[in-house]
Amino acid sequence: MFRDPVQSLEAPSFQPTAEALRPLRVGMIGIGTVGAGTFRVLARNQALIAGRAGRGIEVVVVAARNLARAVSVVGKDVALTNDPLQVATHPDVDVLVEAAGGTGPAREWVLAAIRAGKHVVTANKALLAEHGNEIFAAARQHGVAVAYEGAVAVSIPIVKALREGLTANRIEWVAGIINGTTNFILSKMRDEGVGFAQALAQAQALGYAEADPTFDIEGIDAAHKITLLAANAFGMPLRFADAQVEGITALQGLDVVCAEQLGFRIKLLGVARRREHGDGVNGDGADGVELRVQPALIPATHLLAHVNGSMNGIMVKGDASGVTMYYGAGAGSEQTASAVIADLVDVARLHGTHAAQRVPHLGFHAPAIHDHLAVLPRAAVHTRHYLRVPVHQAQQVEAVGAWLAAQHVPVAKVQLACAQHLPAGGTPQVLVLTDAVAQATVDLAVHALGAHPAVAGPVVSLRVEMLEG
Amino acid sequence: MFRDPVQSLEAPSFQPTAEALRPLRVGMIGIGTVGAGTFRVLARNQALIAGRAGRGIEVVVVAARNLARAVSVVGKDVALTNDPLQVATHPDVDVLVEAAGGTGPAREWVLAAIRAGKHVVTANKALLAEHGNEIFAAARQHGVAVAYEGAVAVSIPIVKALREGLTANRIEWVAGIINGTTNFILSKMRDEGVGFAQALAQAQALGYAEADPTFDIEGIDAAHKITLLAANAFGMPLRFADAQVEGITALQGLDVVCAEQLGFRIKLLGVARRREHGDGVNGDGADGVELRVQPALIPATHLLAHVNGSMNGIMVKGDASGVTMYYGAGAGSEQTASAVIADLVDVARLHGTHAAQRVPHLGFHAPAIHDHLAVLPRAAVHTRHYLRVPVHQAQQVEAVGAWLAAQHVPVAKVQLACAQHLPAGGTPQVLVLTDAVAQATVDLAVHALGAHPAVAGPVVSLRVEMLEG
Repeated sequence: MFRDPVQSLEAPSFQPTAEALRPLRVGMIGIGTVGAGTFRVLARNQALIAGRAGRGIEVVVVAARNLARAVSVVGKDVALTNDPLQVATHPDVDVLVEAAGGTGPAREWVLAAIRAGKHVVTANKALLAEHGNEIFAAARQHGVAVAYEGAVAVSIPIVKALREGLTANRIEWVAGIINGTTNFILSKMRDEGVGFAQALAQAQALGYAEADPTFDIEGIDAAHKITLLAANAFGMPLRFADAQVEGITALQGLDVVCAEQLGFRIKLLGVARRREHGDGVNGDGADGVELRVQPALIPATHLLAHVNGSMNGIMVKGDASGVTMYYGAGAGSEQTASAVIADLVDVARLHGTHAAQRVPHLGFHAPAIHDHLAVLPRAAVHTRHYLRVPVHQAQQVEAVGAWLAAQHVPVAKVQLACAQHLPAGGTPQVLVLTDAVAQATVDLAVHALGAHPAVAGPVVSLRVEMLEG
Repeated sequence: MFRDPVQSLEAPSFQPTAEALRPLRVGMIGIGTVGAGTFRVLARNQALIAGRAGRGIEVVVVAARNLARAVSVVGKDVALTNDPLQVATHPDVDVLVEAAGGTGPAREWVLAAIRAGKHVVTANKALLAEHGNEIFAAARQHGVAVAYEGAVAVSIPIVKALREGLTANRIEWVAGIINGTTNFILSKMRDEGVGFAQALAQAQALGYAEADPTFDIEGIDAAHKITLLAANAFGMPLRFADAQVEGITALQGLDVVCAEQLGFRIKLLGVARRREHGDGVNGDGADGVELRVQPALIPATHLLAHVNGSMNGIMVKGDASGVTMYYGAGAGSEQTASAVIADLVDVARLHGTHAAQRVPHLGFHAPAIHDHLAVLPRAAVHTRHYLRVPVHQAQQVEAVGAWLAAQHVPVAKVQLACAQHLPAGGTPQVLVLTDAVAQATVDLAVHALGAHPAVAGPVVSLRVEMLEG
């Protein structure tokens, strides 16, 4: 398995491509929110994922407490068992997905899988923050991978960013909103002026907080995550027990309001910051790492202040990269599955194909690249549009709207530009927002409108993008 | 080199660790902004990068037009030549960093390196958007990697996110601000109400736009980038020639203002969107990919609307992940170097160590993990602070400030909470912002302040995080 690097670099010998490989076989413990989401997305995007991984990924055996419920999720072609250890050590399993949660038994199952030579994928932040040093040491000893992208910020690939994307950098700090429940509560407190208890009750009613929300609102969940981020940022072991952890249960609505008055917003932040002797910030010469979770004021203009509701956002400062930010959903079944499957694809790519081709250049292995996939012509692109129509007389607003509607342009809004924006005595401008419409329709209408006697100059049209998120 | 995957997965045989490997040897063509930045960061963070890569990364030969200038950057220990082809095919080179720019000659050098069995790293978006299909085919044939993270959004690891982090997903769209020059100009036009020409002149004076800014302001640079993103998102070849490209040169200040009036901001967006027959949006049943760069209106409340100045921000919508966003600098010498070196670390990790250990669990190979790196105690952490002090009488504001200053708390701002935020007839509240100070100092002062006769209730203290970015 070990290859001489000089040899391999100087004489790369190209080998059979990955699509000849048999599928990666997955054993799964737990088929709840994370497990079922993973199974569903693997099934739905099967061909696409195989095209990216270079081979199929198949769930072959699942351990569940309730087998009747499990069979309703995975069907009859997947072996089922009540015994997690059997899955962890199953001879047909290449990689274990630990989707059971908790720490004690999960630790046993993961270690058993590692000792049996299985790779492990987990989104279990408590398990890794508390037992990761032991688990990763065992994995090193047995030559297997333990992947955990879903354990930090579910679908946001922040572990990959730190561990692979920012490897050139001395990381100075990582800071972020890494708990969706508390961010939802804080957003409610700010937007609706309610207190903590009321916002929590709303979060529970809407499914953003669990019946027992302790792990979230006391900051423990965020502390697990910042512990994992700090280790990846600074090259240190996991030190969850040393983290300073403060939740939001004592936060008063009055402080949310007063912070606003001063130009700040309050967010529950996880912060990991490297402090070195003589960096001029810690005057007492402290040397080490800040590792803490606390409600904190951040400037209202800062990008993190705009991370609202249950979303997560993480910033990383590197000495070469400067600040980069990563944003996305902080929870959810398929959002977590997105990370779990990305880890499975990484494992699938570890083996069997030429090393340099494991991550294909354009993300898909050559046979999965669709040569027929064409770029749509300009005329066929549908978006909303903004039109600005200079007119001779301000009272022609309605006429412009009616005239566009007659040209099959779906007018959503039509109004005059506010006078204060225009030069005194200048031409009145009609502003139009359309609903989604083909560019061809807009182009024709704009062209024709230029010749309309009511119109006083060139018509401007720009696309309007109503992106989600 | 090809290993039987069943064998390897079932019986992982652990092998010598990476630190036994000799350094990865880099040949570099061009020692301008990108090349010099890469050399500088590699030198500055040498030990840290080796700890992450599992081996050293050394520049052994550089091709430059001006050798005197080159020697002033790389010193006397690196071989220099005027002949790029010599570097591309040099027997001591494992990987070529193409940092020369341009398309014609760069294509020749890159293809020569590939044919000689070298891996290639480049941040040259024009080269790849226009010749990538040919270059990647050659790389597949010769079994080498061509890595290009720096070609899309410099330090933002967006290629890695799409190609590895979001592999579970059917990507629905990618949209973003992927040209820093035009975003700087548009931010100026909005913030200062100036026209395009004046904003461009300011951008040039400040170094955010080149003397010949055509590639940026006509949208060509952004089109190169969205072409690369679309291929990675959808599994299609690079189709730069088919992209619809519109720059910002015709954009009028009046439309920036009118968009604002309607609740929108104008950004130059690159958009790649998969359209499938019957998705209900393109009524004419168009099936294919939208690939376009245009100034577009986006809602002022959208996170992308808050990506200002020369920063970049890219959003990706996946069917499982939902929306994720990636944000960071869009240009810069060390920012690009961050991506180039991340690619070099990926190449260094391809070879020689156990496959499952190539990306170490916590980002650093075991010998590079600092066991001594401790978490700072609460008392030693320095940040700014917010204090809220309930007082018996509103005129005690100044007294509170003076008293805190006497306790060595550096008071930056002290004021009364606005009356409208407080219950009628309630206790006046003094709000204090401090400069950076040790938590120990704040804790002592807060404790003592609680006993002060002027104080009417518990003092609240929260941290203030003045994050960059």
